[in-house]
Amino acid sequence: MFSNNKITTLFGIKYPIIQGGMIWCSGWKLASAVSNAGGLGLIGGGSMPPDLFREHIQKCKAATNKPFGVNIPLLYPYSEEQVKIVIEEKVPIVFTSAGNPKKYTSILKEHGIKVVHVTANLKFALKSQEAGVDAIVAEGFEAGGHNGREETTTMVLIPKIAKEINIPLIAAGGIATGSGMLAAMVLGADGVQMGSRFVASVEASAHDGFKQKVVEAQEGDTKLQLKQLVSVRLLDNEFSDRITKMQLSGASTEELSEALGRGRAKLGMFDGDLNEGELEIGQVATLIDEVKPVGEIVEEIVDEFISRQSVFSL
Amino acid sequence: MFSNNKITTLFGIKYPIIQGGMIWCSGWKLASAVSNAGGLGLIGGGSMPPDLFREHIQKCKAATNKPFGVNIPLLYPYSEEQVKIVIEEKVPIVFTSAGNPKKYTSILKEHGIKVVHVTANLKFALKSQEAGVDAIVAEGFEAGGHNGREETTTMVLIPKIAKEINIPLIAAGGIATGSGMLAAMVLGADGVQMGSRFVASVEASAHDGFKQKVVEAQEGDTKLQLKQLVSVRLLDNEFSDRITKMQLSGASTEELSEALGRGRAKLGMFDGDLNEGELEIGQVATLIDEVKPVGEIVEEIVDEFISRQSVFSL
Repeated sequence: MFSNNKITTLFGIKYPIIQGGMIWCSGWKLASAVSNAGGLGLIGGGSMPPDLFREHIQKCKAATNKPFGVNIPLLYPYSEEQVKIVIEEKVPIVFTSAGNPKKYTSILKEHGIKVVHVTANLKFALKSQEAGVDAIVAEGFEAGGHNGREETTTMVLIPKIAKEINIPLIAAGGIATGSGMLAAMVLGADGVQMGSRFVASVEASAHDGFKQKVVEAQEGDTKLQLKQLVSVRLLDNEFSDRITKMQLSGASTEELSEALGRGRAKLGMFDGDLNEGELEIGQVATLIDEVKPVGEIVEEIVDEFISRQSVFSL
Repeated sequence: MFSNNKITTLFGIKYPIIQGGMIWCSGWKLASAVSNAGGLGLIGGGSMPPDLFREHIQKCKAATNKPFGVNIPLLYPYSEEQVKIVIEEKVPIVFTSAGNPKKYTSILKEHGIKVVHVTANLKFALKSQEAGVDAIVAEGFEAGGHNGREETTTMVLIPKIAKEINIPLIAAGGIATGSGMLAAMVLGADGVQMGSRFVASVEASAHDGFKQKVVEAQEGDTKLQLKQLVSVRLLDNEFSDRITKMQLSGASTEELSEALGRGRAKLGMFDGDLNEGELEIGQVATLIDEVKPVGEIVEEIVDEFISRQSVFSL
């Protein structure tokens, strides 16, 4: 049913469903499970030093014969070495984010690698297209983790960008179900990227305590924080509440930076300190009620997509 | 084509498109034009003292023989008198907002009036249903004007509420086109409410300078402001930038309240002071490029809805 879809064609996959590459949550187990289920799994390189990154790539290759990719956030120190590794390891697909799309697109493409850049606004979508990427992920305000300053939501961002670019467009932010996927495609996306939904999977490397917090999350339980540093959507906890108070009382970027310190993402999402860690997750956590195996998640999304589509068929 | 739709059936209208009742922008001219075009027009009562409110209702009755309604924001001083007037004038439909849905629902329903309450979260949606309203408007973070504190976007809010209530649901926030309308309905809404799209119409009572600013607005040009008082999404201007700076430097609610003062919504939207007025508009302004007559707007929305639906038909 997705045989004419631009995203399935570009990547050689069955469903236009991409699992977002997430720090501390998406290692080879999650990525290979999503690829085996017919989507595109991404290893989240942001939290991996070079040796570990290479190990995850090699394990992923062993665990699936389907296409998979990696996400390389360009704001982390290892990005240059990671680019070398994906070339050496012949990883077929690379998603870059949090940086300039011109930086590595040419070299990756010269090695036959498909390149996708993640953006949260039209300006960077156009810049990415100019840089020669094969597709764009446009991520709305509701998305988890690092996010744009414009606060444009998926409902507005997708049609805005779809109108202006002529390469495939992947929607992200607020999508965890087949209805959400269909809605995003109605808005002009060719496929979707889901992060939060796959954090709450058996195969995610996130701490079980964090997965449990995700399925328990209610409306209003996440906030876009630290806008003066790098905007990031976090689940409320003691750390996040402290940051909210600091922001309301006019804390400087230096004070916020000091309060953030280092290593809080690992502390929360991987080590399971649910009070003091940074818990990156999307607003859509409120629609996710259960930790499930990836195979079931993908099947449910596709089934709901089809049944919702049938309701609206002319 | 919408003959089995819950919203068209409830209100006796042709298309499940509601024009949001907006202060200073939606008088009898706009409301009657939308109703004549097959949608549901609403007179925005929030900016009208009782005599003027009655005058608008009487002029609207004279200008259309189709159903129309009024919006009564419960935070304004005239709401009690306005409720009396709608009963006396036999207005068939009332949307209440910004207050407790239990306050007037019973008395309005006793007089055969259909009642809809506007909410931005599940808690108030359930409270509205309990209060006996006929339908709910759920308004996402991207919507213009007064808004919820949870910052839940339309992509997340609509499926969240649709799952939990059993009365008709109208989506608002980020919708200005037929694609947006279809996407909202795929997410679980029975119809849509659009505000910003109708501000940029010939028939809106907004100042021409404000209408022009709306069609020129780009991504990121609106912000949810004054969260410590009553959250409101405003178009950036000198006033709004000043508020942003005050908030970042830890201003108290008293200081913000003093900086806001009184009458800024009229000053900006009606009198056309684009620097110092409050310009309430949604993020979706960035998708609106032209001021048009209401008839053309509604026709375009319906045409795009149908053509987008045909793309996704099985």
